[in-house]
Amino acid sequence: MSTAEEMAGGEAEPWVEVTPDAARRLLVAAVEAFAERGYHATTTRDIAGRAGMSPAALYIHYKTKEELLHRISRIGHEKALEILRTASRREGSATERLADAVSSFVRWHAGRRTTARVVQYELDALGPEARAEIVALRRQCDAEVRGIIEEGVASGEFDVLDVWATTLAVLSLCIDVARWFNIEGPRTPDEVGALYADLVLRMVGAGARFPRAQR
Amino acid sequence: MSTAEEMAGGEAEPWVEVTPDAARRLLVAAVEAFAERGYHATTTRDIAGRAGMSPAALYIHYKTKEELLHRISRIGHEKALEILRTASRREGSATERLADAVSSFVRWHAGRRTTARVVQYELDALGPEARAEIVALRRQCDAEVRGIIEEGVASGEFDVLDVWATTLAVLSLCIDVARWFNIEGPRTPDEVGALYADLVLRMVGAGARFPRAQR
Repeated sequence: MSTAEEMAGGEAEPWVEVTPDAARRLLVAAVEAFAERGYHATTTRDIAGRAGMSPAALYIHYKTKEELLHRISRIGHEKALEILRTASRREGSATERLADAVSSFVRWHAGRRTTARVVQYELDALGPEARAEIVALRRQCDAEVRGIIEEGVASGEFDVLDVWATTLAVLSLCIDVARWFNIEGPRTPDEVGALYADLVLRMVGAGARFPRAQR
Repeated sequence: MSTAEEMAGGEAEPWVEVTPDAARRLLVAAVEAFAERGYHATTTRDIAGRAGMSPAALYIHYKTKEELLHRISRIGHEKALEILRTASRREGSATERLADAVSSFVRWHAGRRTTARVVQYELDALGPEARAEIVALRRQCDAEVRGIIEEGVASGEFDVLDVWATTLAVLSLCIDVARWFNIEGPRTPDEVGALYADLVLRMVGAGARFPRAQR
C-alpha cells in the first residue's frame, strides 16, 4: 500500500485512471476550460476543440457538460479521501498521523491546484444527485480528519476546544492552498506542507504541555 | 473612529458608498450574477436586467463589465484593509489586536460571502492595470497582519517559526470562510470569529510558555 505522501505527489499522469485515452484528454481539456473561464461560460464545443476532437466525438464519452464536471469532481474527491484515509489509518501517534494528513493534503492542493479550484468552486453547478454524492465524499473526508483529532484528544496528545470547528478549519486551511499557491511566494509544495503541518499541530495544542521554550 | 468589530458587521447597506442609487443597484446585481454564473458567463445585459434597467442605462455608469468587477473588487479590498488596519492600530497587546483582526475579518467574510467569493475567485479576470491595483491592496492587507505578528514576536508574546508563511496562513484561513460558510454548520459569524481567533493565537504560539494545562 502506498503512503499518503506518495499519493499526494508521486503521480506523473494525474488522470491515469480515466480510459480510453480520448476520454482522458477530454477531461483534462474540461478542467483547463472550467478553470480559465468558469463552468457556465464553457461549452462542450470549447472542450472538444481544446482536446482536438469534434463535438460528436465528445458525446461518445460524455452526454453532458455536467457529466464532465461530475466525473472531475468525483475523481478529485475520491483522491482527497484516499490521501486522508491513508494518513489516518497508518501506524503512529495521532500527532504523526495528523502531520502526515496535512502535509500530504497541502502538497496535493498545491500541485493539483487547477483541478482543486474547479472541484471546490463549481460545486454549485452540479445537479442534486451528483451534488449529494460529492457531499457524501466530503463528509467522509471530514470524518477521517475528525477521527485523528478525536483520538489525539482521547490519548491526551491534543487539547482542543471544539473538535468539529477545528476539523473544519484544518481542512479549510489546506483547501485554500489551491487558491493562493500559484500566485504568491517562493515555497515548494513540500515546504508549504511541512509549514502547515506545524501550524495545524499548534492549532490542536499538540505538545502544549511541553512548551516550545523548554524543548 | 469605529472599531474593527463594528466595521465588520455593523452595516445595514453594504454598498452605501456607491452613488447614485442606479450605480449601486447595478453593482449589487453584478455581484449576484458573477457569484451565480461566473464572470465570463455573465453579460452586461444580464446585469442590467437583474437591476431592472436597460443596457443603455448601464453604460451611463459603467463602460464595461470589467469596470464593474474592478469597482466591486476595489471596494471589497478597501473594506478588508480598513478592518485589518483598524484592528492593527488600536490600543492593546499584539495578542489582543491579532484576535480582533481575525474575528472581525472572519465575521466580514462570513457575512459578505457572496461578495468575497467574487472578489477572490475572479481576480484573474481583471486586466493588468486593475489587477496591479488590487494586488497592491492585498499586499497592504498582508502587511497589517504581518505587522501585528512581528510585534508579538518582538515583545515575546508570540513564538513563530516563519512570519511570512504564518501571515499568509492566517489570512487564508479567514478568507476561506467565504467558501464554506454558507454550506455547512450551525454557527453564527460571531461564533466562527471567536473560534478562529483562538485557533490563530495557537498558531502564533501566544501563551505557549504558559501551557494550557497549568492555566
